[in-house]
Amino acid sequence: MRFRVPGPRRVAETLREFARRRPVEAAEYIETHRDEWEALVEESPETAADVLEAIDEESAAGLLTDLEFHDAGEVLDEMSAESAADVLEELNPATAADLIEEMTADQAADLIGALEEDEREAVLASLEPGPAAEIAALLQYAPDSAGGLMTTEVASLPTGLTAGEAIEALRRLHGEFGNNLYYVYVTDYTQKLAGVVSFRDLVFARPGAGLDEVMIAEPYSVHTDTDREELAELIDRHNLLAIPVVNTEGRLVGMVTVGEAMRAVQAEATEDITQMVGAGAEESVYTPILRSVRRRLPWLLVNLVIGVLIAIALGPFEKIIANTPKLAVLMPMVALLGGNSGAQSLAVIIRAMALGDLPRGRAMRAVRREFLVGITNAAALTLLAGVTGGLFARDLRVGIVMGFAVGLNLIVAGAAGAGIPVILRRLGLDPALASNIFLTLVTDIVGFAGFLFTAQLLL
Amino acid sequence: MRFRVPGPRRVAETLREFARRRPVEAAEYIETHRDEWEALVEESPETAADVLEAIDEESAAGLLTDLEFHDAGEVLDEMSAESAADVLEELNPATAADLIEEMTADQAADLIGALEEDEREAVLASLEPGPAAEIAALLQYAPDSAGGLMTTEVASLPTGLTAGEAIEALRRLHGEFGNNLYYVYVTDYTQKLAGVVSFRDLVFARPGAGLDEVMIAEPYSVHTDTDREELAELIDRHNLLAIPVVNTEGRLVGMVTVGEAMRAVQAEATEDITQMVGAGAEESVYTPILRSVRRRLPWLLVNLVIGVLIAIALGPFEKIIANTPKLAVLMPMVALLGGNSGAQSLAVIIRAMALGDLPRGRAMRAVRREFLVGITNAAALTLLAGVTGGLFARDLRVGIVMGFAVGLNLIVAGAAGAGIPVILRRLGLDPALASNIFLTLVTDIVGFAGFLFTAQLLL
Repeated sequence: MRFRVPGPRRVAETLREFARRRPVEAAEYIETHRDEWEALVEESPETAADVLEAIDEESAAGLLTDLEFHDAGEVLDEMSAESAADVLEELNPATAADLIEEMTADQAADLIGALEEDEREAVLASLEPGPAAEIAALLQYAPDSAGGLMTTEVASLPTGLTAGEAIEALRRLHGEFGNNLYYVYVTDYTQKLAGVVSFRDLVFARPGAGLDEVMIAEPYSVHTDTDREELAELIDRHNLLAIPVVNTEGRLVGMVTVGEAMRAVQAEATEDITQMVGAGAEESVYTPILRSVRRRLPWLLVNLVIGVLIAIALGPFEKIIANTPKLAVLMPMVALLGGNSGAQSLAVIIRAMALGDLPRGRAMRAVRREFLVGITNAAALTLLAGVTGGLFARDLRVGIVMGFAVGLNLIVAGAAGAGIPVILRRLGLDPALASNIFLTLVTDIVGFAGFLFTAQLLL
Repeated sequence: MRFRVPGPRRVAETLREFARRRPVEAAEYIETHRDEWEALVEESPETAADVLEAIDEESAAGLLTDLEFHDAGEVLDEMSAESAADVLEELNPATAADLIEEMTADQAADLIGALEEDEREAVLASLEPGPAAEIAALLQYAPDSAGGLMTTEVASLPTGLTAGEAIEALRRLHGEFGNNLYYVYVTDYTQKLAGVVSFRDLVFARPGAGLDEVMIAEPYSVHTDTDREELAELIDRHNLLAIPVVNTEGRLVGMVTVGEAMRAVQAEATEDITQMVGAGAEESVYTPILRSVRRRLPWLLVNLVIGVLIAIALGPFEKIIANTPKLAVLMPMVALLGGNSGAQSLAVIIRAMALGDLPRGRAMRAVRREFLVGITNAAALTLLAGVTGGLFARDLRVGIVMGFAVGLNLIVAGAAGAGIPVILRRLGLDPALASNIFLTLVTDIVGFAGFLFTAQLLL
């Protein structure tokens, strides 16, 4: 395979795709084509990071240590903390520490937070005192708080300057901050956040104007403890490019960029996928197995209890099951249809809540809508399910029972699927929390017991 | 209730919370306190938009038409397209058209796309020819394509200028573009995109330098047809604030900002929640009921077929059910535990894929991890489920059957939950697509039939 297609960016993209699809061959290719690899690192460290994430850790570690320290740091900055940690665990702690010192402090802190416990201690001990202190300060913040997400590379200027002086100061800061120079924050003599000035407003201001005239006073800001969801909502609602982070004394300590908020929003939005079924919000494909099990097991125990409840509910019907065992054979169909249609209603409501599309005042209307969807589904499927059940059992009465039970369960499922997250939210809980498990409780009881109860009445 | 707390922003936040929690009272309050409402609109149109989204459409429509046209347009720009459409449907088409003309073209197009069919025709007919043409051009793009997401308010300058001339030109454009002036794109004489120049680089460049020296040539760009997922990935990976959109001839037609990409990412990330259970990706709490049903019904029919398959699989066990009906009473527990633990594995994998954390080369390791989680769950629950089943049936042998069947289903569930999205992705399909339905097929068959089969062997 050859990569010499026109333009360095095309080369980078091709190599990236190659690594994603055929990691083993890609690693070998890179080892024998170092010039291409180094050009890629130079041209696009973020693409080099993607490549290292795709190939095995040992090869990745080898490629990283062969780079200039500074370049390796840039690539590590662009990798996800978990995969960067996996790669650095292949190296001895002193080498890992050397590479980490080349990273930006916030990315380094995330990476160190993702290391295994003993590896983390060893790496922290090997760091120079300066970076070690900076990283330790960042490590105290929760990863999904503003403190955990912020970069400390933030440009600030004192209130006393003029616009012209500020531009001169920024020309010097430009090299240092590079792409992080979104806004310039203005601080008073105690380092408290006083205002924000956009680069544009500075340029278009009268050079002699004071910074305090040009700046927007009391800008939107967050505290180091602010949750990522609240932070992202502020950035989104007010179309900000970054939001400043202050400590308890109101002093400027960092900023969270819109790009970082975008990743936080993505993590937050997808949290519901795992929350719905009782898997941990912070679980990933890198979580140690025992930690995953510890998170998930309590909800499986809830399922065990639900199973017992279902068994108790079905107890009274043992006689009719003994007489007509076909009923036991058919009853999963009723539970299945209710469970899935309820899950559809649940999913639409939870998604709307995650997107901020369902304010409290609108919730009842959404529940009503899903209830009507349930009735429509019932109207569409009652006859079909009845005919299917009747044909399967070769018994018209079983068909009638089946049609009735499926219709009932579809209607209940629509109301329950929509109602459960609304109730959870009213109770001040996460609307997604184990919602699918509660839903199954309803649709299984109605599905199994409703079917057998109707059978007892009609057969 | 009084809102005169210090600072206009605090007032805005309080009113916003009030509207979200008690929409009816909030609407009444605003109608009798117009000065506060108008101050809110002035201070923060995005917060005013939140208020209108929370209260009923009729009140919202009344409040909107009482504002100056220009202010109303700003508020509408900040509302979600669906709720803005709901509000404008309360007005006659001519009034609605007057308000829409005050909006930015891309927001107006989204709003008009969200109107009911006949309302849309009437509004389009009432628009002035200029805005009508611009909106019609935008309406031809799919809502989740770059064309559907872009703003046409993009600053571009011809290659021929010097940096100093460019700054002068931007000073004039500043008023027009306001906050949209992220980057300045450089176009050649045929309006083809030639480069991008950041405002900073322009300011720090030698005033006499040509734009083509200062700009970055061949910037990242997307085509009007590019999907929002690909677009958001580019913005995220390369830390862009906006990405230019070009048409088939390579001419610059707009740009998508990182804020817009953030909303797209959120919509994309939460899509999986609905996709997993066979509800439509584009469904929301505003979708007409019949359209929802049309989307969901095919998957419910798949469930019906799965129900028949289960019934067929259980057919051979009718005799043992007739002899020991307690088995039918207990079997839902086995299916339930497998279904939920499988859904946990499924959720973790799908989430990792949605976040881009699971490249193809890593997929098998993640499946193995979930398989091991399944084995660990089985080790933890086999005895407990066995004891529960045995006690419930007052029969040691039923307990043994239960324990064995639960353990088996938990192991199969881990592998199936992780394997299904990996297989779907290999097949080039959306890994979330109806994945939970396929999973239920596996865990129900293994749960119900596995339990009865073991019982037939052991009882």
